[in-house]
Amino acid sequence: MRLTNTVLLFLLLLLLISCDALALKPQLLGRHIVRTYSQHTSVSYKTFYFDQQIDHFGFLENGTFKQRYLLNDKHWHKEGGPILFYTGNEGDITWFCNNTGFMWDVAEELGALLVFAEHRYYGESMPFGEESYSNAKYLNYLTSEQALADFAMLIKALKKNLPRAQNSSVIAIGGSYGGMLAAWLRMKYPSAVVGALAASAPIWQFIVPCGEFYKVVTHDFTISGTNCSSNIRRSWAAVDRVSATGEGLQWLSQEFGLCNPLKTPDEVYSFKAWLQETWVNLAMVDYPYEANFLQPLPAWPVKVVCRNLHFDTGVSDKQLLNGISKAVRVYYNFTGGAVCLNTSQTATGNLGFLGWFYQSCTEMVMPMCTDGVVDMFEPQPWNFQAFSDECFNQFGVRPREDWAEIVYGGRNISDHSNIIFSNGNLDPWMSGGVTKSLSESLVAIMIDGGAHHLDLRYNNEFDPESVLKTRALEVHYFKQWLKQAATTQ
Amino acid sequence: MRLTNTVLLFLLLLLLISCDALALKPQLLGRHIVRTYSQHTSVSYKTFYFDQQIDHFGFLENGTFKQRYLLNDKHWHKEGGPILFYTGNEGDITWFCNNTGFMWDVAEELGALLVFAEHRYYGESMPFGEESYSNAKYLNYLTSEQALADFAMLIKALKKNLPRAQNSSVIAIGGSYGGMLAAWLRMKYPSAVVGALAASAPIWQFIVPCGEFYKVVTHDFTISGTNCSSNIRRSWAAVDRVSATGEGLQWLSQEFGLCNPLKTPDEVYSFKAWLQETWVNLAMVDYPYEANFLQPLPAWPVKVVCRNLHFDTGVSDKQLLNGISKAVRVYYNFTGGAVCLNTSQTATGNLGFLGWFYQSCTEMVMPMCTDGVVDMFEPQPWNFQAFSDECFNQFGVRPREDWAEIVYGGRNISDHSNIIFSNGNLDPWMSGGVTKSLSESLVAIMIDGGAHHLDLRYNNEFDPESVLKTRALEVHYFKQWLKQAATTQ
Repeated sequence: MRLTNTVLLFLLLLLLISCDALALKPQLLGRHIVRTYSQHTSVSYKTFYFDQQIDHFGFLENGTFKQRYLLNDKHWHKEGGPILFYTGNEGDITWFCNNTGFMWDVAEELGALLVFAEHRYYGESMPFGEESYSNAKYLNYLTSEQALADFAMLIKALKKNLPRAQNSSVIAIGGSYGGMLAAWLRMKYPSAVVGALAASAPIWQFIVPCGEFYKVVTHDFTISGTNCSSNIRRSWAAVDRVSATGEGLQWLSQEFGLCNPLKTPDEVYSFKAWLQETWVNLAMVDYPYEANFLQPLPAWPVKVVCRNLHFDTGVSDKQLLNGISKAVRVYYNFTGGAVCLNTSQTATGNLGFLGWFYQSCTEMVMPMCTDGVVDMFEPQPWNFQAFSDECFNQFGVRPREDWAEIVYGGRNISDHSNIIFSNGNLDPWMSGGVTKSLSESLVAIMIDGGAHHLDLRYNNEFDPESVLKTRALEVHYFKQWLKQAATTQ
Repeated sequence: MRLTNTVLLFLLLLLLISCDALALKPQLLGRHIVRTYSQHTSVSYKTFYFDQQIDHFGFLENGTFKQRYLLNDKHWHKEGGPILFYTGNEGDITWFCNNTGFMWDVAEELGALLVFAEHRYYGESMPFGEESYSNAKYLNYLTSEQALADFAMLIKALKKNLPRAQNSSVIAIGGSYGGMLAAWLRMKYPSAVVGALAASAPIWQFIVPCGEFYKVVTHDFTISGTNCSSNIRRSWAAVDRVSATGEGLQWLSQEFGLCNPLKTPDEVYSFKAWLQETWVNLAMVDYPYEANFLQPLPAWPVKVVCRNLHFDTGVSDKQLLNGISKAVRVYYNFTGGAVCLNTSQTATGNLGFLGWFYQSCTEMVMPMCTDGVVDMFEPQPWNFQAFSDECFNQFGVRPREDWAEIVYGGRNISDHSNIIFSNGNLDPWMSGGVTKSLSESLVAIMIDGGAHHLDLRYNNEFDPESVLKTRALEVHYFKQWLKQAATTQ
């Protein structure tokens, strides 16, 4: 038995979402768990609202909405000092503000004004208030192009209206989808920003082979423990065999301590989807220190997970699934507080879920597939038509398969300049990232041992050397761009 | 008495339109008038229609329309040979095709495929068929951003579907608004085109001081004959004085041989607007050889006009206006065939009029003003609010004053590359053009003695040395870009 297209599509969407749902988690909370954590630069900001055009690309809809942005000028000591501008992604901007420790860590050194701009249709920045998600007409202005225009308009207004900002150079910074936006802002509006840091930004996820993402997930598990990925690969059939009987279903539910015992084949599909997403999330948050991101987790959580999955091939289905259940609990019950496991969620950051689903259903089409051979998942081809039909049913819109490549240039982006693409080699999203420098000023940095935009997190004493060097290099490029801008002004 | 805002606004719009109405005129017809004209490369093409997305920036409107494009592969000898891509402006693409002799002249030397892409809402490329202009909802997709996306989509499709085009490099070419589109296509979609020739493209007309345009018009008349511009400057008050009486109105109508005699003050305003537009048009088509562009005209028509306006300041109002009437006839009756003069038109190219009016009323906001001191026109300040109200009355939309600068970068465009900005020093539109090189690959070429995109016209034996050099330099850069592209592929 295998996942139906529909279920898998949903799963894929969940995965797409979880990429940034991750980023939505309160990183600040994580600090308190890390016992040896150093003192952070304090996060404090003022909140403002900018009257933003609802539609930048048409003139019939001439309304505006309040776009939220946060501002901290504590480190902005000089007239014309630089502005670090966070290009908000799919969530509440206060979460991103609290979770981008890097900007707070470097603000003083750069004497920078910090600005965090919320992405339309997320957080409080709702073009049609509470009705924004109520129908396809209101959702029609939720696109990356509109968001980029928002950022360009806001930057223009800030430089015009902030007393000391007229000659300030702006650097765009973002992670994940926000990193894509940072890169695209520099590409589409180079007059607005002198450069961009695009951290863990899978700008090529639209065009890389659909299996790449899951290959990276699998590789993380392969290198983190003997037989780890091969046992996960074997687990799907084991689930199918065990769940084929009523007794097996009951055993499985008890073994995993599920809040809602499995009863139907559909529920077993969902259960497998939940497992798959759990492995993906673990790969993304495989940080070198204890952190509370999606869940409270130990340092190097994938290694800890894999300690439960080192059996050789002779093991029985139930023994194997017992290991899987222990492994899963590393993710869902590291603190020991979980009464039961809830398969309906893998991440609490529901903020932004629907919006990103819509964006995936329009322009952010990232084909994904598995084959069970080069990856540890059940084989599932990419089916664009089924995906499109699902989107049409949900939102009344259909995705445009080629648009993102055309509008953002695909692989042919070497005419642009001043963009850092940073990726962690543990992060599944690096599969769609720019991992080799394209020119002297389109610089790729690979972070050895880095998971999803590790470089945007606060400095931590357990950070690997690689990420410390990465952050230093990023600041080095920032200074170079600012110097360039100063000489050409 | 002076022009009301409304009349002047209308006039300004006419002027804006006439910029490209010019380009709409059948240049080929002109050839037959130039007696010593050499043989041209023959113009022949196949017509195709591309299924183009109506809305690139939203997904609710998922319809397509037939975008027309013309293709000539007679000179395209090699697999992967270059593509010269004309970025159509506000008119029927067959007119542009017939009027861009430069592309036909250089096609063989470059071994290039010629493509002429029609701009949406002009010619046959109507997103909603005959209803396209019927209401604000249907007009909502008439923007330069949508047009650029059309070009990028079409280029992608051509490279994918034409058997020998997969590795072809594309160069964008356009004049006037089409030149702005060529530059912007390179700026916004550098993956689509390796470079752009933006001929007489006033990409800064949005942000230059409002009086610049008319200063150039005035300068053309100043250098073309003694007292020429000063007598035109004096003529407005003379018209007012003479037209203050019934007898004067009658005299004026007879003196100018008007088809519809002047009766009301409003008609006198319109008469002056018509005169003003005539001077502007003359400045734009001040070509060094006989041509039939807006009207059949002698070589250096402004000089011929000025021969009628050399009086000193002692001349009477009626003597002055007699000279003006003779001057105007150079433009409207060079061939001697006009029975009477019709003040309701200065250019026959009505194609595209309404579309460009709409574009001026949305994003193409080009402030213009006169003061009667540095220019030869009646003082009229720029009044954005009145303009906006006029637009709202006409189309139900309001212009966005700052948008063009934000979306296209204003003066801060030096991060882009591979664009030639050519301008003629006689062309009023050079006031909004890039007339100094911004970098090694953002090259400005000034054509001494050149009017509106003279370089895009066929070679002519009366061409000044400056335009011959310009065309050679343009081809030189084309080859450089193609070489660059070949080495980076």
